[in-house]
Amino acid sequence: MEEKNMNYIKKLREVKPLVHNITNYVTVNDVANAILAIGGSPIMSDEITEVAQMTSTSNALNINIGTLNQVKIASMFEAGKASNACKHITVLDPVGAGATDLRTNTCKELLEQIHFDAIKGNISEIKTLMAGTGHTKGVDASVEDQKNSHDLIDDIKAFAKELNTIIIVTGPIDYVTDGNKCYMINNGCKEMSAITGTGCMLSGILGCFLTVENSVDSAAAAVMSMGIAGEIGASKLKEGEGNATLRTYLIDALFNMTDEELEKSGKYEVQ
Amino acid sequence: MEEKNMNYIKKLREVKPLVHNITNYVTVNDVANAILAIGGSPIMSDEITEVAQMTSTSNALNINIGTLNQVKIASMFEAGKASNACKHITVLDPVGAGATDLRTNTCKELLEQIHFDAIKGNISEIKTLMAGTGHTKGVDASVEDQKNSHDLIDDIKAFAKELNTIIIVTGPIDYVTDGNKCYMINNGCKEMSAITGTGCMLSGILGCFLTVENSVDSAAAAVMSMGIAGEIGASKLKEGEGNATLRTYLIDALFNMTDEELEKSGKYEVQ
Amino acid sequence: MEEKNMNYIKKLREVKPLVHNITNYVTVNDVANAILAIGGSPIMSDEITEVAQMTSTSNALNINIGTLNQVKIASMFEAGKASNACKHITVLDPVGAGATDLRTNTCKELLEQIHFDAIKGNISEIKTLMAGTGHTKGVDASVEDQKNSHDLIDDIKAFAKELNTIIIVTGPIDYVTDGNKCYMINNGCKEMSAITGTGCMLSGILGCFLTVENSVDSAAAAVMSMGIAGEIGASKLKEGEGNATLRTYLIDALFNMTDEELEKSGKYEVQ
Repeated sequence: MEEKNMNYIKKLREVKPLVHNITNYVTVNDVANAILAIGGSPIMSDEITEVAQMTSTSNALNINIGTLNQVKIASMFEAGKASNACKHITVLDPVGAGATDLRTNTCKELLEQIHFDAIKGNISEIKTLMAGTGHTKGVDASVEDQKNSHDLIDDIKAFAKELNTIIIVTGPIDYVTDGNKCYMINNGCKEMSAITGTGCMLSGILGCFLTVENSVDSAAAAVMSMGIAGEIGASKLKEGEGNATLRTYLIDALFNMTDEELEKSGKYEVQ
Repeated sequence: MEEKNMNYIKKLREVKPLVHNITNYVTVNDVANAILAIGGSPIMSDEITEVAQMTSTSNALNINIGTLNQVKIASMFEAGKASNACKHITVLDPVGAGATDLRTNTCKELLEQIHFDAIKGNISEIKTLMAGTGHTKGVDASVEDQKNSHDLIDDIKAFAKELNTIIIVTGPIDYVTDGNKCYMINNGCKEMSAITGTGCMLSGILGCFLTVENSVDSAAAAVMSMGIAGEIGASKLKEGEGNATLRTYLIDALFNMTDEELEKSGKYEVQ
Repeated sequence: MEEKNMNYIKKLREVKPLVHNITNYVTVNDVANAILAIGGSPIMSDEITEVAQMTSTSNALNINIGTLNQVKIASMFEAGKASNACKHITVLDPVGAGATDLRTNTCKELLEQIHFDAIKGNISEIKTLMAGTGHTKGVDASVEDQKNSHDLIDDIKAFAKELNTIIIVTGPIDYVTDGNKCYMINNGCKEMSAITGTGCMLSGILGCFLTVENSVDSAAAAVMSMGIAGEIGASKLKEGEGNATLRTYLIDALFNMTDEELEKSGKYEVQ
């Protein structure tokens, strides 16, 4: 990073931000343990009659549409508006946007009604969101999308500026931009794609990092933390071990992550 | 197996089948990681307004009634019909059929309206399904059921033929039949019963194997994969380790499973 | 303990109690594996049209309001009444009572309509329940609550007597009282707070222990089991390991827990 002395994680562990998650039931346990590992405190609630109150007493709200349903969608809007009213950190993980009309349309409406401080998705999901506002046409197959993601940097930056948000595009290279500055992060490893939930965990810890400092630099630190944790986990894998052990190692590595580790192992360029 | 060169897993990892799961929230994370471990790709959705679209773009649908509710049941029918219309692989895991009227009746109606390529349950669950169509009277206690499962082979074969499906009865010996051929598989170990979710994981990977080849042989390979993974996991347990470590080892073993391992360690007779 | 030869766990593994859990989707898998580890059998169901039947055929009911919603709340009342009618063990885990009005009010109504054999919460949650019946005024911040929990013993004992229940207050010291006897248990360790679900797992195994013997001594044994399992887990942690590994070690330690271990490692006073 440009500033040489990062202290996001140190501060995070002092603040111990409370992150309210409206998330999917597939990876929710890993999200909770990842938030605890990095030093935050997780709370999960998706019942419409309590989400506004829960959000108001939290530091951040993480909306993940992984297993959305009609009931949860209503709660997402309710909680999102409460979070905006409190000026709390609000994060969107548009899981599977583009895969079904319901997911695409829900994201589109969330973007219209809620201000998000950060939006994290893979290139296909982010392209879907951009298409909704006229930036791209259609959603390509994700292999194609990944190949071309570098060409889309200007579009993504413009989109971030338009929404006044930080956009994180995950992939072999992760892009993190607030519309002005753009980090291209080269941490992480292919083994991570064999675990469910790395993306969901990232959204959860993003809520923690942004509570400490709402900036593109802080978001980039969150992305690097997850990538480096994956690298550490994969490097520890012994013969006969696989994705279940990697999941354990990865969360353990988040638990042991430090600002010094980020400075030492973060691989990125800023554009 | 009869054919000496199995290549289900090799093909599976080339095809990387996308399996849509409408499943319970208890074991859903393990199901996702098991599908990833064997080489497939999991997607979970149970919202009625998107399941048909999700199923249509997947390769297989896995319906597991573990934590069913009125909302999910409607989605199961919706998705099942879409899967049938697309001629996709469709799997049923009738968790707890016989334990409550709701589960028994839901399964009965699913069998009436949806064609399943495979149905996997323990002997009590399968007997419950057969009773619904008049093959057995009542549902015995499960200890009794297990003792007598071998005597039921002819009934189960007839049931498989009637439904034009593959039936997998899990237990100390696993039976896999399409009504003609019947595998009796002697893999797996008692330690596996101390982990929740081995049955649910099996349904998930069944969806993967049957996408590669919709046959009783392929289903038997899926069953052996899970059993051998359990054996490998149990053999690695050290003093002081228990069911949580076994779960990790088992999924890791699925991750490292190969067709060669199946040929070497598969223990079965065909009748 | 006073009686020198504890045999709760031995009996538990003979009885293999079936515990019906209406619980949250965050920690549900850990609850299931913890119940299996200690020797019970878990079943999860929250659909109103089947919960009464499921409860009736189980040995215990564990109601955990961690991710409550309107639909689940109705099922909690339905199942609770069925459990009371069958005179089955009924346990309440009032997760987050005091955090939202919905949680506080739901607990208050549950206490009015259902008899619980045991209620387990942290000091803030238990104070919230007591406030509802006039024993305390308001709910202090949880740091303050923890400092003062010892001063509340008399109130908690009176509350237990009033409700004819066993109350377990978890914290640095755990209090377990039936209104007459009060255990102050000094097992467990700070590392456990970095894992989600230790409290939920405890409620699950409480259902198992109380099925064996519905007494304050048996409840205390359940609390010690969890605390000792955490200590064993933490003692095994090596450099680079963290909360994910601790979770695995803790459940493994429950799997290997014995009455002898409880007698040897249980640290408590009785007042």
